[in-house]
Amino acid sequence: MAQYIEQGKRFQLNSPSLAPNSAAYLWNRKMMLHMNCRGYAVSQYMDPEPRKYAHVPTLAAVSFMQPEQPYFAHHPGRFFYIRDNQSGEMFSAPYAPMNRELDLFSFEPGTSDIRWKVQCLGLELIISLGLSDTDVVERWSVDLINLGESERDISLIPYFPVGYSSWMNMGGSFDPELNAILCTCITPYQKVDDYFKNAHLKDMTYLCADRKVDFFEVSQPVFEGEGGLHAPSSLANRANLGCGDAIYEMPTCCMQFCIKLQAYESQNTQLIFGPAKDAAEVARMRKRYLLSDTQQRNLEYKQYVERGKGCLEIESPDSDFDSFVNHWLPRQVYYHGDSNRLSTDPQTRNYLQDAMGMAYVDDGLTKTAILTALAQQKDDGEMPDGILLSAEAELKYINQVPHTDHSVWLCIIMTSYLNETGDSSLLEHQLKWSNNDVSDSVFEHISRAMNYLIGAVDERGLPYIAQGDWCDPMNMVGYQGKGVSAWLTEAISYALQLWADICEQHQRDDLAVYYQEQAGIFNQRLNQHFWHNNWFGRGITDAGTLFGIDSDPEGKIFLNAQSWALLCKATNTEQQQQILAAIDERLETPYGVMMFAPAFTAMRDDIGRVTQKWPGSAENGSVYNHAAAFYAASLFAIDEPDRAFSTLRRMLSSCNETDIKRRDQLPVYIPNYYRGAYYQHPRTAGRSSNLFNTGSGAWFYQLTIEKMFGLQGCKDGLLIKPQLPSHWSQAKAKREFRGAEFSVTYQRSADINAMQVFVNDEHLDMPCIQNIERGMRYKVLVKLPLSSLVTETQDG
Amino acid sequence: MAQYIEQGKRFQLNSPSLAPNSAAYLWNRKMMLHMNCRGYAVSQYMDPEPRKYAHVPTLAAVSFMQPEQPYFAHHPGRFFYIRDNQSGEMFSAPYAPMNRELDLFSFEPGTSDIRWKVQCLGLELIISLGLSDTDVVERWSVDLINLGESERDISLIPYFPVGYSSWMNMGGSFDPELNAILCTCITPYQKVDDYFKNAHLKDMTYLCADRKVDFFEVSQPVFEGEGGLHAPSSLANRANLGCGDAIYEMPTCCMQFCIKLQAYESQNTQLIFGPAKDAAEVARMRKRYLLSDTQQRNLEYKQYVERGKGCLEIESPDSDFDSFVNHWLPRQVYYHGDSNRLSTDPQTRNYLQDAMGMAYVDDGLTKTAILTALAQQKDDGEMPDGILLSAEAELKYINQVPHTDHSVWLCIIMTSYLNETGDSSLLEHQLKWSNNDVSDSVFEHISRAMNYLIGAVDERGLPYIAQGDWCDPMNMVGYQGKGVSAWLTEAISYALQLWADICEQHQRDDLAVYYQEQAGIFNQRLNQHFWHNNWFGRGITDAGTLFGIDSDPEGKIFLNAQSWALLCKATNTEQQQQILAAIDERLETPYGVMMFAPAFTAMRDDIGRVTQKWPGSAENGSVYNHAAAFYAASLFAIDEPDRAFSTLRRMLSSCNETDIKRRDQLPVYIPNYYRGAYYQHPRTAGRSSNLFNTGSGAWFYQLTIEKMFGLQGCKDGLLIKPQLPSHWSQAKAKREFRGAEFSVTYQRSADINAMQVFVNDEHLDMPCIQNIERGMRYKVLVKLPLSSLVTETQDG
Repeated sequence: MAQYIEQGKRFQLNSPSLAPNSAAYLWNRKMMLHMNCRGYAVSQYMDPEPRKYAHVPTLAAVSFMQPEQPYFAHHPGRFFYIRDNQSGEMFSAPYAPMNRELDLFSFEPGTSDIRWKVQCLGLELIISLGLSDTDVVERWSVDLINLGESERDISLIPYFPVGYSSWMNMGGSFDPELNAILCTCITPYQKVDDYFKNAHLKDMTYLCADRKVDFFEVSQPVFEGEGGLHAPSSLANRANLGCGDAIYEMPTCCMQFCIKLQAYESQNTQLIFGPAKDAAEVARMRKRYLLSDTQQRNLEYKQYVERGKGCLEIESPDSDFDSFVNHWLPRQVYYHGDSNRLSTDPQTRNYLQDAMGMAYVDDGLTKTAILTALAQQKDDGEMPDGILLSAEAELKYINQVPHTDHSVWLCIIMTSYLNETGDSSLLEHQLKWSNNDVSDSVFEHISRAMNYLIGAVDERGLPYIAQGDWCDPMNMVGYQGKGVSAWLTEAISYALQLWADICEQHQRDDLAVYYQEQAGIFNQRLNQHFWHNNWFGRGITDAGTLFGIDSDPEGKIFLNAQSWALLCKATNTEQQQQILAAIDERLETPYGVMMFAPAFTAMRDDIGRVTQKWPGSAENGSVYNHAAAFYAASLFAIDEPDRAFSTLRRMLSSCNETDIKRRDQLPVYIPNYYRGAYYQHPRTAGRSSNLFNTGSGAWFYQLTIEKMFGLQGCKDGLLIKPQLPSHWSQAKAKREFRGAEFSVTYQRSADINAMQVFVNDEHLDMPCIQNIERGMRYKVLVKLPLSSLVTETQDG
Repeated sequence: MAQYIEQGKRFQLNSPSLAPNSAAYLWNRKMMLHMNCRGYAVSQYMDPEPRKYAHVPTLAAVSFMQPEQPYFAHHPGRFFYIRDNQSGEMFSAPYAPMNRELDLFSFEPGTSDIRWKVQCLGLELIISLGLSDTDVVERWSVDLINLGESERDISLIPYFPVGYSSWMNMGGSFDPELNAILCTCITPYQKVDDYFKNAHLKDMTYLCADRKVDFFEVSQPVFEGEGGLHAPSSLANRANLGCGDAIYEMPTCCMQFCIKLQAYESQNTQLIFGPAKDAAEVARMRKRYLLSDTQQRNLEYKQYVERGKGCLEIESPDSDFDSFVNHWLPRQVYYHGDSNRLSTDPQTRNYLQDAMGMAYVDDGLTKTAILTALAQQKDDGEMPDGILLSAEAELKYINQVPHTDHSVWLCIIMTSYLNETGDSSLLEHQLKWSNNDVSDSVFEHISRAMNYLIGAVDERGLPYIAQGDWCDPMNMVGYQGKGVSAWLTEAISYALQLWADICEQHQRDDLAVYYQEQAGIFNQRLNQHFWHNNWFGRGITDAGTLFGIDSDPEGKIFLNAQSWALLCKATNTEQQQQILAAIDERLETPYGVMMFAPAFTAMRDDIGRVTQKWPGSAENGSVYNHAAAFYAASLFAIDEPDRAFSTLRRMLSSCNETDIKRRDQLPVYIPNYYRGAYYQHPRTAGRSSNLFNTGSGAWFYQLTIEKMFGLQGCKDGLLIKPQLPSHWSQAKAKREFRGAEFSVTYQRSADINAMQVFVNDEHLDMPCIQNIERGMRYKVLVKLPLSSLVTETQDG
């Protein structure tokens, strides 16, 4: 009922009601489309700020998608009514709005298209959706197939509602020359300045067909009539659409094609749907995407998506995991890095982590992101809350709230970039500051960022949290200017250690020693101020209260405060065991590891907004996958590969009905969260947000490549240091690295007690492949002992 | 199918599909509820800014209602599913969401309640809705009646959806102690300051019943299931609701009452629905509105509404007009004046005109409004764009756009107040300025306002329009600081004349002469710069272009520029005839008089935003009733009572199917517009906005009282100067005035050629009843000649 098909490049869900909110997404740099299995859609494009071309039926707030986005009858979507013109019988495909039981339903998202197969009334529909590599347009193809021997007279009726676009002006009509429905509006505004700002907007939404439109309706209320969307009056009693326009009425793009099908005949119809400035642009889009070679257009978009194929191909005992890692994970990483989540002012933290993931997909973009971010740094080293990507962009929403962690991510992204590319010339690249025209090197920029972090501390040497660290809504721990963050203490220490390593590798031993010392000092302060009983507290409030400890009734233990303590090497072995035991007991669930527990059920006004979110949703104690990925990283860091794999693996739905139904999501992307509050709200625990914007992907991918399969770049070449799950007796990986290809075979063997690495059949003394030549193929054999404790023995 | 019943105090519409968007409204000072005949609702309350307690199913923009508010399946509403528990058959009342054909449907809005009668499946429902006089609560009563002899087993299932209240936190559950469903949310925010600002918000929505709840469902998606709202899965196959909660799921208030009815038995169920801070407030509301004397609560709200009954009761040959004027018109005037349209920063123009209407309903509020507005005047005489009604209020939306007409309305409201009350002491009332603590008299305040208007002119002496005059979206005529307004020239002249009259009446002859002279100068400038061929242009743009003239392809003739020219006496008889002929030819429609024509079909960027609205909607050439009321005023001013009556009369739907269907509105309020563009978009011409916020009511009421029935106050008493339609041979009016009651009979007679007035059978030489005694009843007989030209002959 739910499985990967086509070698993992496509998923198949065979029920419209098992996971009704499950979805897939397509995107390019200008747009994204989140397509629900039943036909509901959320789409957005940049102009230059995010905008919609299909709207809800009411005056909507400007927003991206909501977590667990609610769908309802008149939610935007792309639907096809099918009517037997002889009998008048109808159904809708892929499923909504009629929700009629079908003979066959198959939702089949692929990496560069989304497809459905539907059978009902002796007919089959194959519906597929693709985008363009460069333009904002939806390309739809519908094959209508007669499954029987009798001739059929069928109406194919695409119903693409446009919704409530404007109280100022909205309408639409059919343009026979373009064979298109053109819906127009004027984006509402009240101030003169906005008239000029809005002048360029694409306020037209069109549906254009390659087949002659026989009938149409542009007025949504006329289409629907008294019958409702499940039984639209305009199609009742075998009537044809009235060919009406929308005159300040909610417009819809509804066409009727009357198609006669011989026995077993199939007929194809192509449609394009999207925004345009005017009819001339529709004409251009029509020419390019309907009247020319559509196979070529498919190929172009496929090629765009495949540019994000990543650098790793694996073959493990867990084929579903392979499918995800080989096709869907790099795709999600690429989406983030290439589209910047369709924002003109990404949060600095997100921007840098998304670009970190790109180091494994397209490292040129990583470099660009590092330089773009550092150009917006102040000369005292402080990083801004968001990175402006265009001249007109401004910091919005959460980026107007001061956070204190942004500099941390510079070292993390830089480490990934250097590991992957070895391109240390970047460190010498010169660039200006946002408030100073003097050029300094990237090395100097990041050093100053570290110095800034070292200095932004209180009298105890603990870093201020201001109105948030990594956790945006933890906004009242330090809003009075005193509260401090344990997580940030750890994150600074970790960043300093990474930076010290880079300093050392680049002959700045003085600085390496200094930053390493500073890291040690932060670790010492961490233990002094935040260790409490069996784990680390999460912070100390403005009023001096340590929280995230056992005596708190809610929010007793925070995952990040533990995982980053492990990452920054602030713990001894005993502490590690205490921490792991506490997490196992209090935070683990079948759907992943919760960010903290118990979730807050009431406002705690010395912690803030996070405590007001619904318990178990988002940052309030959900299985927040970004935090789960940090935890996996920390587990690899302390050599706990089984726990680490389990943590990563649970970020994906399993391909079984129970899990798919519970999570209400397909394993074609990692959502930002699954519901937590496992003990508080068991009914909903595990339910996916179905939001695919998340920092998790970059980390998941990095960890899989560098830690799990142990194929991590270093200054000299490729380190081999796998931490595979202990129950995997063998695995394979194909790794692209610095222009070469490495085919790696992993074999566990009872015959050895330490890892042995062979490159092109030659045994390596040290597990590092040096002097890599571009264009070469390397055959690597990694023999592993049965024990999972590989790292302890590898130097033996 | 559509008629007034109960002596005009109630309307009756017997079809749910004749006018599907028709509606009625209830309100008190804290809330308003716009109730559609099919059960859809838009409600709002003040906390202190406008808020909702029932939401659309998606993240909504903050807004009032939209013109022609679109309804859709999941739009907020109050619905009752009825199920025969034996057969499983269902219908919904009043109509949506099932839209099943009913045996009887009757939507019966009254002045202080809204009622439906519905019959189906051998059952009758009488549903009625009332509010509280002081609290924010909906009080619902449902009588379920067995129309047959067999015993029935029925489920009554109120379904009051709560919608998408918050992405941060939303949910709900049943509280058995309160016998209520409590839905909670946290109003979304991101900044710390807003936490404190939001602390008082009533983020709970409840439905509480006086009958024991047998089953319930709080999760909207669970209630609906695969079936959809027209066939909810949770009620299919005779199942009962699952008693589920909403855990960060869209909440709904859905209860199931299992009711056994004997032959012809009737059972009543009472419900209350509204916002609350917490469960304790729900308990208080329950005690007051469910557990105590509900008849008393009905009475209290009725008494609140009846405080707005106004000062006129008429009996004319047009009984529908009587019903409207006697019951619905003063109610609408009272709604505006008492609630300030549920805004904390009403536009100055609206605020003053709404308060002008209150002179005929509750003149104390008129006085308060004058003083409130003047206290926000600057000491140079300039009035602000909006009047702030609370300490926290700020100027929002359109009030941030500079308009130049606000001072004009001071004289208009003051004239009404003085006419109605004779309270000239108000002129001497001392009050400060917004920017100056020196106290000056109201007289001085208004004089300075007039002086400000006189001074805000260009080198030709024409008043600047800035970013709008009365017409908000006419924002680009003068945004560069040069454009001028013909309408404002007229309005200033009219205001100066009114003020000169007041000056004269209050022994300030010097000022009277001065202002009268100034008015004359404005009139002279008007004729010099704006008269073009057969009518007045509307303005001169920044670039010096006169517009609103015959050579313009669109917007050739503007109504306001003509009507106010008549009002301010700037026209000679020939001009009047030219103007009337042009309006008859170009602006008149069966649904009223259009504000201009042709409506703009494309942006004209030297006029502005008005040209971008949909042609025929709102200010872009609709039958904009506020402007139509001005025109009626001008017609009375030039003694055209038949044209004036026709203009007023067309603001109401007629009680026939054709007109009700076309307008999609009932004559229980004046909407702000009916669609215009009569020649451009004939299909939609006449369709109502169904928005009941409009400046039209105050003018309509004043004109009916003072002009049509000619019962206008003056310094010395009550002037009798009727301008009844010439085809009315007789009429009656009961007028309350300065504490006395006047029963007036109008009779046309062929025997006389000039009006004769008898008071208590005594003939008056001059038609002014002086020395009025409070508490007295006066019997007045007004004999009129057959001709309609009353005013010309009355002095003869």
